[in-house]
Amino acid sequence: MDESPGIAKLYSVLIAGEYAAHSRLITELGMAPDVDSRIAMGRLAASEMNHFDELAAELVKRDIDPVAAVLRYVDVFDRYHGTTNPKTWDEAMVKAYVGDGLAADFYRELAGALPADARDVVSTVMAETGNSQFARDWVRSRVAADPALRWPLTLWGRRLLGEAITHAQWVLAAEEDVTDLLFSSTTDLAAVSRFFDTVTELHAQRMADLGLG
Amino acid sequence: MDESPGIAKLYSVLIAGEYAAHSRLITELGMAPDVDSRIAMGRLAASEMNHFDELAAELVKRDIDPVAAVLRYVDVFDRYHGTTNPKTWDEAMVKAYVGDGLAADFYRELAGALPADARDVVSTVMAETGNSQFARDWVRSRVAADPALRWPLTLWGRRLLGEAITHAQWVLAAEEDVTDLLFSSTTDLAAVSRFFDTVTELHAQRMADLGLG
Repeated sequence: MDESPGIAKLYSVLIAGEYAAHSRLITELGMAPDVDSRIAMGRLAASEMNHFDELAAELVKRDIDPVAAVLRYVDVFDRYHGTTNPKTWDEAMVKAYVGDGLAADFYRELAGALPADARDVVSTVMAETGNSQFARDWVRSRVAADPALRWPLTLWGRRLLGEAITHAQWVLAAEEDVTDLLFSSTTDLAAVSRFFDTVTELHAQRMADLGLG
Repeated sequence: MDESPGIAKLYSVLIAGEYAAHSRLITELGMAPDVDSRIAMGRLAASEMNHFDELAAELVKRDIDPVAAVLRYVDVFDRYHGTTNPKTWDEAMVKAYVGDGLAADFYRELAGALPADARDVVSTVMAETGNSQFARDWVRSRVAADPALRWPLTLWGRRLLGEAITHAQWVLAAEEDVTDLLFSSTTDLAAVSRFFDTVTELHAQRMADLGLG
């Protein structure tokens, strides 16, 4: 295929992210306090798996083994999840909502840099899912009912953002082709820095949606 | 809706079965020995969740709350899974293949008793999934590589069938409307008995597919 090598690498990074996110949701499902929560989390995990399959199909078209792509890039996601391991269902819900939102921000901010067909693929796998509304409603009602949860969950949300940015920067630093693809319009690091500023602002809005911050 | 009350009860039983199966697959995913296995099991769980949503939509059309349906019927499935709790990934794979097959048999044997629209719904949620082929190939290659696994996994397969029949009979005994719907063509219990004989024969074939029995 006559395309930037950054595209296949971007898909490889994203598929490892879907795999790691799915593994985490599955683990966290064990904490679900009721049938509704278990169903909502099961749907979120199922949509990660559907996204995984979309990316796998794109990789196979490019003669790349999806499992090899997972193995190559999964460590950085596992490190992110390892440093942000929810201890309660409330923390898991904040993480599900914030993580889904960060993925959607990432897409919105970077779509313009991608060729049209790649934009469609990334749009499908990164768009905010309806399932994360369950997480938002859960956190809002918990915080409204018990204001003592507000501060610890606010700190938790900040930590999630900080670790997400740190780990995303590691990926960009290690994968020049991906960085070139996404930030090719400028020659300096200012674009990368502005990107993370925007993500931080959108995150603040999302925390407010949750009744936090 | 002008239909047999057995239809809504059948969907209620099936949705509880999907919920319980999904919960079990999620738990068993923790035993997956490699990335391929984890992905295959994740796909199986995702397809149970999609089936869950199909049945939920049918129940909502009939003013039945899907969560209430799960809570009403889940116990018998939880008991089945509790008595057939795999201790190894090999046992989990036999169970996934056998369980998927039993659901497909159930549909094939009983489809004729259902009205056309119910047949379509049950067909969609009970048909054998492509995902169970992963489980079949796994067991075959394990048994071929290590013949000492053959006998314990054969016993395990027999136990799965026995417990599935026992628990299915409990459901039929408790839910007369469902039994009437599925076995209405005869007036005695002979049809139910023949049904379980056929399922037993198909199970023997499936065990042979696995290199067991």
